[in-house]
Amino acid sequence: MIKVVLLGAGNVAQHLIKAFEESPSIELLQVCARTTNEIESLLSKTKITTDIQALVAADVYIIAVSDKAIEEVSNQLSTKNALVVHTSGSVGMDALSSHARVGVFYPLQTFSKHLKVDFSTVPICLEAHTNEDLELLKRLADSISQSVHFINSEQRKALHVAAVFVCNFVNHLYQQGEAICKENNLDFALLKPLIQETAHKILELSPAEAQTGPAKRNDIKTIENHLQFITDIRQREIYTLMTQSIIDYGKKL
Amino acid sequence: MIKVVLLGAGNVAQHLIKAFEESPSIELLQVCARTTNEIESLLSKTKITTDIQALVAADVYIIAVSDKAIEEVSNQLSTKNALVVHTSGSVGMDALSSHARVGVFYPLQTFSKHLKVDFSTVPICLEAHTNEDLELLKRLADSISQSVHFINSEQRKALHVAAVFVCNFVNHLYQQGEAICKENNLDFALLKPLIQETAHKILELSPAEAQTGPAKRNDIKTIENHLQFITDIRQREIYTLMTQSIIDYGKKL
Repeated sequence: MIKVVLLGAGNVAQHLIKAFEESPSIELLQVCARTTNEIESLLSKTKITTDIQALVAADVYIIAVSDKAIEEVSNQLSTKNALVVHTSGSVGMDALSSHARVGVFYPLQTFSKHLKVDFSTVPICLEAHTNEDLELLKRLADSISQSVHFINSEQRKALHVAAVFVCNFVNHLYQQGEAICKENNLDFALLKPLIQETAHKILELSPAEAQTGPAKRNDIKTIENHLQFITDIRQREIYTLMTQSIIDYGKKL
Repeated sequence: MIKVVLLGAGNVAQHLIKAFEESPSIELLQVCARTTNEIESLLSKTKITTDIQALVAADVYIIAVSDKAIEEVSNQLSTKNALVVHTSGSVGMDALSSHARVGVFYPLQTFSKHLKVDFSTVPICLEAHTNEDLELLKRLADSISQSVHFINSEQRKALHVAAVFVCNFVNHLYQQGEAICKENNLDFALLKPLIQETAHKILELSPAEAQTGPAKRNDIKTIENHLQFITDIRQREIYTLMTQSIIDYGKKL
Protein backbone atom coordinates (compact mmCIF):
# COMPACT_ATOMS: atom_id res chain seq x y z
CA MET A 1 0.00 0.00 0.00
CA ILE A 2 1.25 3.42 -0.93
CA LYS A 3 0.27 5.97 1.69
CA VAL A 4 -0.85 9.25 0.18
CA VAL A 5 -1.79 12.68 1.51
CA LEU A 6 -3.48 15.00 -0.97
CA LEU A 7 -3.50 18.78 -0.74
CA GLY A 8 -6.25 20.59 -2.62
CA ALA A 9 -9.99 20.35 -3.29
CA GLY A 10 -10.38 21.60 -6.86
CA ASN A 11 -11.19 19.69 -10.06
CA VAL A 12 -7.96 17.71 -10.27
CA ALA A 13 -7.95 16.96 -6.53
CA GLN A 14 -11.54 15.73 -6.62
CA HIS A 15 -10.89 13.38 -9.53
CA LEU A 16 -7.72 12.06 -7.89
CA ILE A 17 -9.58 11.44 -4.62
CA LYS A 18 -12.16 9.34 -6.49
CA ALA A 19 -9.49 7.38 -8.35
CA PHE A 20 -7.39 6.77 -5.22
CA GLU A 21 -10.42 5.73 -3.17
CA GLU A 22 -11.23 3.11 -5.81
CA SER A 23 -7.68 1.73 -5.97
CA PRO A 24 -6.89 -1.23 -3.70
CA SER A 25 -3.16 -0.44 -3.64
CA ILE A 26 -3.41 3.17 -2.47
CA GLU A 27 -4.27 4.30 1.01
CA LEU A 28 -5.47 7.90 0.88
CA LEU A 29 -4.72 8.88 4.49
CA GLN A 30 -5.76 12.50 4.43
CA VAL A 31 -6.91 15.38 2.27
CA CYS A 32 -6.02 18.91 3.29
CA ALA A 33 -7.76 21.98 1.83
CA ARG A 34 -8.77 25.49 2.84
CA THR A 35 -12.41 24.86 1.96
CA THR A 36 -13.63 21.30 2.22
CA ASN A 37 -17.36 21.35 1.37
CA GLU A 38 -16.77 20.12 -2.19
CA ILE A 39 -14.89 17.00 -1.10
CA GLU A 40 -16.96 15.99 1.92
CA SER A 41 -19.02 13.55 -0.12
CA LEU A 42 -15.93 11.89 -1.56
CA LEU A 43 -14.28 10.43 1.53
CA SER A 44 -14.65 9.98 5.25
CA LYS A 45 -14.81 13.30 7.12
CA THR A 46 -12.20 12.05 9.57
CA LYS A 47 -9.69 12.12 6.71
CA ILE A 48 -10.35 15.76 5.85
CA THR A 49 -8.44 18.61 7.46
CA THR A 50 -7.96 22.31 6.90
CA ASP A 51 -4.78 22.42 9.00
CA ILE A 52 -1.66 21.88 6.89
CA GLN A 53 0.40 21.66 10.12
CA ALA A 54 -1.62 18.63 11.27
CA LEU A 55 -0.80 16.17 8.51
CA VAL A 56 -0.01 12.52 9.14
CA ALA A 57 3.09 10.76 7.83
CA ALA A 58 2.80 9.42 4.26
CA ASP A 59 4.92 8.09 1.40
CA VAL A 60 3.80 10.75 -1.05
CA TYR A 61 2.29 14.21 -0.61
CA ILE A 62 0.44 15.34 -3.72
CA ILE A 63 -0.10 19.08 -4.10
CA ALA A 64 -3.10 19.42 -6.42
CA VAL A 65 -3.81 23.14 -6.09
CA SER A 66 -3.85 25.99 -8.61
CA ASP A 67 -0.50 26.72 -10.28
CA LYS A 68 -0.14 30.01 -8.44
CA ALA A 69 -0.56 28.40 -5.02
CA ILE A 70 1.80 25.43 -5.44
CA GLU A 71 4.93 27.12 -4.09
CA GLU A 72 3.14 28.64 -1.10
CA VAL A 73 1.48 25.32 -0.16
CA SER A 74 4.80 23.52 -0.62
CA ASN A 75 6.55 25.99 1.69
CA GLN A 76 3.92 25.48 4.40
CA LEU A 77 4.13 21.71 4.15
CA SER A 78 6.54 19.88 6.43
CA THR A 79 7.24 16.18 5.90
CA LYS A 80 9.72 13.70 7.30
CA ASN A 81 11.71 13.28 4.10
CA ALA A 82 8.68 12.08 2.11
CA LEU A 83 8.26 12.57 -1.62
CA VAL A 84 6.39 15.79 -2.50
CA VAL A 85 4.88 16.19 -5.99
CA HIS A 86 2.57 18.60 -7.76
CA THR A 87 0.08 17.85 -10.54
CA SER A 88 0.69 20.81 -12.83
CA GLY A 89 1.61 20.70 -16.50
CA SER A 90 3.20 24.13 -16.47
CA VAL A 91 5.01 24.54 -13.13
CA GLY A 92 8.62 23.47 -12.68
CA MET A 93 9.86 21.19 -9.90
CA ASP A 94 11.71 24.17 -8.40
CA ALA A 95 8.40 25.35 -6.92
CA LEU A 96 8.83 22.45 -4.49
CA SER A 97 12.45 23.32 -3.60
CA SER A 98 11.78 23.50 0.15
CA HIS A 99 11.71 19.68 0.06
CA ALA A 100 14.54 17.22 -0.55
CA ARG A 101 12.57 14.65 -2.58
CA VAL A 102 10.34 16.23 -5.21
CA GLY A 103 8.57 15.26 -8.42
CA VAL A 104 5.66 15.77 -10.76
CA PHE A 105 2.49 13.70 -11.15
CA TYR A 106 0.73 15.35 -14.09
CA PRO A 107 -2.53 13.80 -15.31
CA LEU A 108 -2.95 14.99 -18.91
CA GLN A 109 -6.71 15.42 -19.04
CA THR A 110 -9.39 18.11 -18.76
CA PHE A 111 -11.34 17.77 -15.55
CA SER A 112 -14.73 19.33 -14.93
CA LYS A 113 -16.75 19.10 -11.77
CA HIS A 114 -19.54 16.52 -11.73
CA LEU A 115 -18.23 14.84 -14.88
CA LYS A 116 -16.84 11.38 -14.29
CA VAL A 117 -13.47 10.63 -15.89
CA ASP A 118 -12.20 7.11 -16.53
CA PHE A 119 -8.77 7.52 -14.97
CA SER A 120 -7.50 4.24 -16.41
CA THR A 121 -7.15 5.94 -19.83
CA VAL A 122 -5.66 9.22 -18.56
CA PRO A 123 -1.96 9.59 -19.43
CA ILE A 124 -0.01 10.37 -16.26
CA CYS A 125 3.30 12.13 -16.83
CA LEU A 126 5.91 11.54 -14.15
CA GLU A 127 9.12 13.29 -13.23
CA ALA A 128 11.49 13.01 -10.26
CA HIS A 129 15.19 13.44 -9.48
CA THR A 130 15.99 9.84 -8.49
CA ASN A 131 15.12 6.46 -9.95
CA GLU A 132 13.76 5.40 -6.57
CA ASP A 133 11.29 8.27 -6.51
CA LEU A 134 10.36 7.66 -10.15
CA GLU A 135 9.66 4.02 -9.27
CA LEU A 136 7.44 5.06 -6.37
CA LEU A 137 5.54 7.49 -8.60
CA LYS A 138 5.21 4.82 -11.27
CA ARG A 139 3.69 2.36 -8.80
CA LEU A 140 1.28 5.09 -7.68
CA ALA A 141 0.33 6.01 -11.26
CA ASP A 142 0.07 2.37 -12.42
CA SER A 143 -2.51 1.75 -9.74
CA ILE A 144 -4.96 4.22 -11.30
CA SER A 145 -3.94 4.46 -14.98
CA GLN A 146 -2.82 2.22 -17.82
CA SER A 147 -0.98 5.08 -19.51
CA VAL A 148 2.06 6.10 -17.44
CA HIS A 149 4.97 8.05 -18.93
CA PHE A 150 8.30 9.49 -17.83
CA ILE A 151 8.36 13.02 -19.21
CA ASN A 152 11.03 15.61 -18.50
CA SER A 153 10.27 19.24 -17.63
CA GLU A 154 10.82 20.58 -21.15
CA GLN A 155 8.58 17.92 -22.65
CA ARG A 156 5.93 18.52 -20.02
CA LYS A 157 5.94 22.21 -20.94
CA ALA A 158 5.48 21.25 -24.60
CA LEU A 159 2.67 18.85 -23.72
CA HIS A 160 0.91 21.54 -21.73
CA VAL A 161 1.12 24.00 -24.61
CA ALA A 162 -0.13 21.33 -27.03
CA ALA A 163 -2.95 20.53 -24.61
CA VAL A 164 -4.01 24.19 -24.67
CA PHE A 165 -4.29 23.95 -28.47
CA VAL A 166 -6.22 20.65 -28.64
CA CYS A 167 -8.42 21.21 -25.58
CA ASN A 168 -8.85 24.83 -24.47
CA PHE A 169 -8.73 26.36 -27.95
CA VAL A 170 -10.83 23.56 -29.42
CA ASN A 171 -13.48 24.14 -26.77
CA HIS A 172 -13.44 27.84 -27.61
CA LEU A 173 -14.15 26.95 -31.25
CA TYR A 174 -17.14 24.95 -29.99
CA GLN A 175 -18.20 28.14 -28.21
CA GLN A 176 -17.90 30.16 -31.44
CA GLY A 177 -19.91 27.47 -33.24
CA GLU A 178 -22.58 27.69 -30.57
CA ALA A 179 -22.66 31.50 -30.93
CA ILE A 180 -23.15 31.23 -34.72
CA CYS A 181 -25.99 28.77 -34.13
CA LYS A 182 -27.69 31.02 -31.58
CA GLU A 183 -27.50 34.05 -33.90
CA ASN A 184 -29.28 32.05 -36.57
CA ASN A 185 -31.90 30.30 -34.43
CA LEU A 186 -30.23 26.95 -34.82
CA ASP A 187 -29.89 24.29 -32.14
CA PHE A 188 -26.21 23.78 -31.24
CA ALA A 189 -27.08 20.08 -30.89
CA LEU A 190 -27.03 19.90 -34.70
CA LEU A 191 -23.24 20.27 -34.54
CA LYS A 192 -22.63 17.65 -31.86
CA PRO A 193 -22.38 14.58 -34.12
CA LEU A 194 -19.86 16.50 -36.23
CA ILE A 195 -17.87 17.45 -33.12
CA GLN A 196 -17.80 13.83 -31.94
CA GLU A 197 -16.80 12.50 -35.36
CA THR A 198 -14.05 15.12 -35.75
CA ALA A 199 -12.49 13.94 -32.48
CA HIS A 200 -13.15 10.28 -33.29
CA LYS A 201 -11.45 10.47 -36.69
CA ILE A 202 -8.16 11.41 -35.04
CA LEU A 203 -8.01 7.94 -33.48
CA GLU A 204 -7.76 6.41 -36.97
CA LEU A 205 -6.27 9.13 -39.17
CA SER A 206 -3.46 11.64 -38.81
CA PRO A 207 -4.63 15.28 -38.55
CA ALA A 208 -3.33 15.82 -42.10
CA GLU A 209 -5.38 12.90 -43.42
CA ALA A 210 -8.44 13.99 -41.44
CA GLN A 211 -8.41 17.61 -42.63
CA THR A 212 -11.42 18.59 -44.75
CA GLY A 213 -13.16 21.84 -45.63
CA PRO A 214 -12.79 24.87 -47.90
CA ALA A 215 -9.32 25.88 -46.65
CA LYS A 216 -7.96 22.36 -47.28
CA ARG A 217 -9.42 22.47 -50.79
CA ASN A 218 -8.23 26.06 -51.27
CA ASP A 219 -11.83 26.84 -52.21
CA ILE A 220 -11.51 30.63 -52.37
CA LYS A 221 -15.12 31.18 -53.42
CA THR A 222 -16.55 29.42 -50.35
CA ILE A 223 -14.01 31.13 -48.07
CA GLU A 224 -15.07 34.54 -49.43
CA ASN A 225 -18.74 33.65 -49.01
CA HIS A 226 -18.09 32.67 -45.39
CA LEU A 227 -16.20 35.89 -44.68
CA GLN A 228 -19.09 37.88 -46.15
CA PHE A 229 -21.47 35.96 -43.90
CA ILE A 230 -19.50 36.44 -40.66
CA THR A 231 -20.16 39.85 -39.09
CA ASP A 232 -18.52 39.33 -35.67
CA ILE A 233 -15.01 40.85 -35.81
CA ARG A 234 -13.38 38.22 -33.58
CA GLN A 235 -14.95 35.39 -35.57
CA ARG A 236 -13.61 36.95 -38.78
CA GLU A 237 -10.11 37.15 -37.26
CA ILE A 238 -10.23 33.50 -36.21
CA TYR A 239 -11.67 32.43 -39.57
CA THR A 240 -9.00 34.33 -41.50
CA LEU A 241 -6.04 33.15 -39.40
CA MET A 242 -7.08 29.49 -39.19
CA THR A 243 -7.88 29.38 -42.92
CA GLN A 244 -4.50 30.88 -43.80
CA SER A 245 -2.77 28.46 -41.44
CA ILE A 246 -4.51 25.43 -43.02
CA ILE A 247 -3.60 26.65 -46.52
CA ASP A 248 0.06 27.25 -45.55
CA TYR A 249 0.22 23.90 -43.78
CA GLY A 250 -1.04 22.15 -46.89
CA LYS A 251 1.82 23.67 -48.88
CA LYS A 252 4.40 22.43 -46.36
CA LEU A 253 3.21 18.80 -46.50
CA MET B 1 -39.59 2.53 -52.36
CA ILE B 2 -38.01 5.83 -53.29
CA LYS B 3 -36.07 5.55 -56.52
CA VAL B 4 -32.78 7.39 -56.39
CA VAL B 5 -30.03 8.23 -58.88
CA LEU B 6 -26.82 9.56 -57.39
CA LEU B 7 -24.28 11.70 -59.22
CA GLY B 8 -20.74 11.73 -57.81
CA ALA B 9 -18.12 9.36 -56.45
CA GLY B 10 -16.35 11.40 -53.77
CA ASN B 11 -16.48 11.10 -49.97
CA VAL B 12 -20.09 12.19 -49.53
CA ALA B 13 -21.28 10.13 -52.50
CA GLN B 14 -19.52 7.01 -51.22
CA HIS B 15 -21.03 7.30 -47.76
CA LEU B 16 -24.50 7.95 -49.22
CA ILE B 17 -24.19 4.90 -51.49
CA LYS B 18 -23.42 2.72 -48.46
CA ALA B 19 -26.32 4.16 -46.45
CA PHE B 20 -28.79 3.85 -49.35
CA GLU B 21 -27.71 0.29 -50.13
CA GLU B 22 -28.43 -0.66 -46.52
CA SER B 23 -31.86 0.98 -46.44
CA PRO B 24 -34.84 -1.24 -47.31
CA SER B 25 -36.98 1.72 -48.39
CA ILE B 26 -34.58 3.21 -50.94
CA GLU B 27 -33.84 1.78 -54.34
CA LEU B 28 -30.54 3.15 -55.59
CA LEU B 29 -31.05 2.68 -59.30
CA GLN B 30 -27.85 4.16 -60.64
CA VAL B 31 -24.69 6.06 -59.77
CA CYS B 32 -23.11 8.33 -62.35
CA ALA B 33 -19.54 9.62 -62.08
CA ARG B 34 -16.63 10.57 -64.33
CA THR B 35 -14.30 8.11 -62.60
CA THR B 36 -15.88 5.06 -61.05
CA ASN B 37 -13.04 2.95 -59.63
CA GLU B 38 -13.62 4.16 -56.06
CA ILE B 39 -17.27 3.09 -56.02
CA GLU B 40 -17.03 -0.21 -57.87
CA SER B 41 -16.82 -2.17 -54.62
CA LEU B 42 -19.89 -0.45 -53.20
CA LEU B 43 -22.62 -1.55 -55.60
CA SER B 44 -23.36 -3.69 -58.63
CA LYS B 45 -21.35 -2.62 -61.68
CA THR B 46 -24.50 -2.67 -63.79
CA LYS B 47 -25.72 0.31 -61.75
CA ILE B 48 -22.64 2.40 -62.46
CA THR B 49 -22.37 4.69 -65.47
CA THR B 50 -20.11 7.47 -66.68
CA ASP B 51 -22.69 8.75 -69.16
CA ILE B 52 -24.90 11.44 -67.65
CA GLN B 53 -27.09 11.29 -70.77
CA ALA B 54 -27.91 7.62 -70.10
CA LEU B 55 -29.65 7.91 -66.74
CA VAL B 56 -32.81 6.00 -65.87
CA ALA B 57 -35.98 7.61 -64.51
CA ALA B 58 -36.02 8.17 -60.74
CA ASP B 59 -37.91 10.06 -58.03
CA VAL B 60 -34.86 11.98 -56.82
CA TYR B 61 -31.52 12.81 -58.43
CA ILE B 62 -28.86 13.61 -55.83
CA ILE B 63 -25.88 15.63 -57.03
CA ALA B 64 -23.09 14.82 -54.56
CA VAL B 65 -20.13 16.40 -56.33
CA SER B 66 -17.72 19.19 -55.33
CA ASP B 67 -19.33 22.61 -54.79
CA LYS B 68 -17.68 24.00 -57.92
CA ALA B 69 -19.08 21.26 -60.16
CA ILE B 70 -22.70 21.26 -58.93
CA GLU B 71 -24.04 23.79 -61.45
CA GLU B 72 -22.29 22.18 -64.41
CA VAL B 73 -23.51 18.69 -63.49
CA SER B 74 -27.01 20.07 -62.91
CA ASN B 75 -27.02 21.70 -66.34
CA GLN B 76 -25.98 18.44 -68.02
CA LEU B 77 -28.63 16.44 -66.22
CA SER B 78 -32.00 15.98 -67.89
CA THR B 79 -34.89 14.47 -65.93
CA LYS B 80 -38.60 14.04 -66.55
CA ASN B 81 -39.73 16.54 -63.92
CA ALA B 82 -38.02 14.65 -61.08
CA LEU B 83 -36.71 16.30 -57.93
CA VAL B 84 -33.04 17.35 -58.21
CA VAL B 85 -31.07 18.09 -55.04
CA HIS B 86 -27.46 18.74 -54.08
CA THR B 87 -25.68 17.83 -50.83
CA SER B 88 -23.69 20.99 -50.20
CA GLY B 89 -23.77 23.16 -47.11
CA SER B 90 -22.60 26.25 -48.91
CA VAL B 91 -24.20 26.26 -52.38
CA GLY B 92 -27.60 27.86 -52.99
CA MET B 93 -30.52 26.14 -54.67
CA ASP B 94 -30.09 28.50 -57.64
CA ALA B 95 -27.20 26.32 -58.83
CA LEU B 96 -29.92 23.83 -59.81
CA SER B 97 -32.07 26.39 -61.63
CA SER B 98 -32.13 24.40 -64.89
CA HIS B 99 -34.68 22.14 -63.15
CA ALA B 100 -38.25 22.85 -62.09
CA ARG B 101 -38.21 20.88 -58.80
CA VAL B 102 -35.08 21.46 -56.75
CA GLY B 103 -33.89 21.09 -53.19
CA VAL B 104 -31.03 20.44 -50.78
CA PHE B 105 -30.12 17.24 -48.95
CA TYR B 106 -27.18 18.31 -46.74
CA PRO B 107 -25.70 15.72 -44.39
CA LEU B 108 -23.95 17.71 -41.65
CA GLN B 109 -20.94 15.49 -41.03
CA THR B 110 -17.28 15.16 -41.96
CA PHE B 111 -16.68 12.25 -44.27
CA SER B 112 -13.33 10.61 -44.89
CA LYS B 113 -12.60 7.73 -47.20
CA HIS B 114 -12.35 4.29 -45.60
CA LEU B 115 -13.84 5.55 -42.33
CA LYS B 116 -17.29 4.17 -41.61
CA VAL B 117 -19.92 6.68 -40.49
CA ASP B 118 -23.09 5.72 -38.63
CA PHE B 119 -25.54 7.61 -40.82
CA SER B 120 -28.40 7.15 -38.36
CA THR B 121 -26.89 9.88 -36.15
CA VAL B 122 -25.95 12.29 -38.97
CA PRO B 123 -28.20 15.39 -39.04
CA ILE B 124 -29.64 15.78 -42.54
CA CYS B 125 -30.71 19.33 -43.41
CA LEU B 126 -33.45 19.57 -46.01
CA GLU B 127 -34.72 22.38 -48.16
CA ALA B 128 -37.15 22.51 -51.11
CA HIS B 129 -39.64 24.94 -52.68
CA THR B 130 -42.82 22.90 -52.13
CA ASN B 131 -44.23 20.94 -49.22
CA GLU B 132 -44.60 17.93 -51.48
CA ASP B 133 -40.89 17.92 -52.33
CA LEU B 134 -39.98 18.51 -48.68
CA GLU B 135 -42.11 15.50 -47.76
CA LEU B 136 -40.35 13.35 -50.34
CA LEU B 137 -36.93 14.47 -49.07
CA LYS B 138 -38.02 13.83 -45.51
CA ARG B 139 -39.04 10.25 -46.33
CA LEU B 140 -35.70 9.78 -48.06
CA ALA B 141 -33.73 11.23 -45.12
CA ASP B 142 -35.80 9.40 -42.48
CA SER B 143 -34.87 6.12 -44.10
CA ILE B 144 -31.15 6.62 -43.34
CA SER B 145 -31.05 9.06 -40.37
CA GLN B 146 -32.87 9.70 -37.10
CA SER B 147 -31.93 13.39 -37.20
CA VAL B 148 -33.79 15.16 -40.03
CA HIS B 149 -34.28 18.92 -40.11
CA PHE B 150 -35.88 21.56 -42.31
CA ILE B 151 -33.28 24.29 -42.63
CA ASN B 152 -33.58 27.35 -44.87
CA SER B 153 -30.74 28.61 -47.08
CA GLU B 154 -29.60 31.30 -44.66
CA GLN B 155 -29.51 28.85 -41.74
CA ARG B 156 -27.69 26.30 -43.85
CA LYS B 157 -25.04 28.90 -44.64
CA ALA B 158 -24.68 29.60 -40.90
CA LEU B 159 -24.47 25.89 -40.12
CA HIS B 160 -21.75 25.44 -42.71
CA VAL B 161 -19.72 28.31 -41.27
CA ALA B 162 -20.20 26.92 -37.74
CA ALA B 163 -19.15 23.48 -39.02
CA VAL B 164 -15.93 24.98 -40.35
CA PHE B 165 -15.19 26.27 -36.84
CA VAL B 166 -16.02 23.10 -34.90
CA CYS B 167 -14.62 20.61 -37.43
CA ASN B 168 -12.07 22.00 -39.91
CA PHE B 169 -10.49 24.51 -37.53
CA VAL B 170 -10.61 22.05 -34.63
CA ASN B 171 -8.80 19.45 -36.73
CA HIS B 172 -6.18 22.05 -37.59
CA LEU B 173 -5.62 22.62 -33.87
CA TYR B 174 -5.07 18.86 -33.58
CA GLN B 175 -2.48 19.27 -36.33
CA GLN B 176 -0.74 22.06 -34.40
CA GLY B 177 -0.80 19.89 -31.28
CA GLU B 178 0.78 17.06 -33.26
CA ALA B 179 3.47 19.44 -34.57
CA ILE B 180 4.33 20.59 -31.04
CA CYS B 181 4.60 16.95 -29.95
CA LYS B 182 6.87 16.05 -32.88
CA GLU B 183 9.20 18.96 -32.20
CA ASN B 184 9.61 17.74 -28.64
CA ASN B 185 9.92 13.99 -29.28
CA LEU B 186 6.53 13.29 -27.79
CA ASP B 187 4.00 10.78 -29.05
CA PHE B 188 0.86 12.57 -30.31
CA ALA B 189 -1.08 9.62 -28.84
CA LEU B 190 -0.54 11.21 -25.42
CA LEU B 191 -3.03 13.92 -26.41
CA LYS B 192 -5.73 11.60 -27.76
CA PRO B 193 -7.57 10.92 -24.48
CA LEU B 194 -7.68 14.69 -23.91
CA ILE B 195 -9.03 15.25 -27.43
CA GLN B 196 -11.74 12.63 -26.91
CA GLU B 197 -12.73 14.00 -23.49
CA THR B 198 -12.85 17.59 -24.80
CA ALA B 199 -15.37 16.52 -27.46
CA HIS B 200 -17.22 14.24 -25.04
CA LYS B 201 -17.69 16.98 -22.42
CA ILE B 202 -19.69 19.04 -24.89
CA LEU B 203 -22.44 16.41 -24.79
CA GLU B 204 -22.99 17.18 -21.11
CA LEU B 205 -21.81 20.75 -20.60
CA SER B 206 -22.21 23.99 -22.53
CA PRO B 207 -18.97 25.26 -24.11
CA ALA B 208 -18.88 28.01 -21.46
CA GLU B 209 -19.13 25.44 -18.65
CA ALA B 210 -16.58 23.18 -20.32
CA GLN B 211 -13.93 25.87 -20.84
CA THR B 212 -10.75 25.34 -18.83
CA GLY B 213 -7.14 26.49 -19.14
CA PRO B 214 -4.93 29.52 -18.53
CA ALA B 215 -6.96 31.92 -20.71
CA LYS B 216 -10.18 31.02 -18.88
CA ARG B 217 -8.43 31.63 -15.54
CA ASN B 218 -6.77 34.78 -16.91
CA ASP B 219 -3.49 33.22 -15.75
CA ILE B 220 -1.12 35.77 -17.33
CA LYS B 221 2.02 34.10 -15.98
CA THR B 222 1.29 30.77 -17.66
CA ILE B 223 0.21 32.51 -20.87
CA GLU B 224 3.51 34.42 -20.96
CA ASN B 225 5.46 31.22 -20.27
CA HIS B 226 3.67 29.51 -23.14
CA LEU B 227 4.36 32.39 -25.52
CA GLN B 228 8.03 32.26 -24.58
CA PHE B 229 8.04 28.54 -25.30
CA ILE B 230 6.35 28.75 -28.72
CA THR B 231 8.82 29.67 -31.45
CA ASP B 232 6.67 28.98 -34.53
CA ILE B 233 5.21 32.30 -35.71
CA ARG B 234 1.87 30.88 -36.85
CA GLN B 235 1.45 28.99 -33.57
CA ARG B 236 2.14 32.22 -31.67
CA GLU B 237 -0.51 34.04 -33.72
CA ILE B 238 -3.07 31.33 -33.06
CA TYR B 239 -2.17 31.17 -29.36
CA THR B 240 -2.44 34.95 -28.96
CA LEU B 241 -5.72 35.33 -30.85
CA MET B 242 -7.49 32.36 -29.25
CA THR B 243 -6.31 33.37 -25.78
CA GLN B 244 -7.57 36.94 -26.26
CA SER B 245 -10.87 35.64 -27.62
CA ILE B 246 -11.37 33.34 -24.60
CA ILE B 247 -10.56 36.19 -22.20
CA ASP B 248 -12.95 38.59 -23.98
CA TYR B 249 -15.64 35.94 -24.12
CA GLY B 250 -15.36 35.40 -20.39
CA LYS B 251 -16.03 39.09 -19.83
CA LYS B 252 -19.16 39.00 -22.00
CA LEU B 253 -20.73 36.08 -20.10
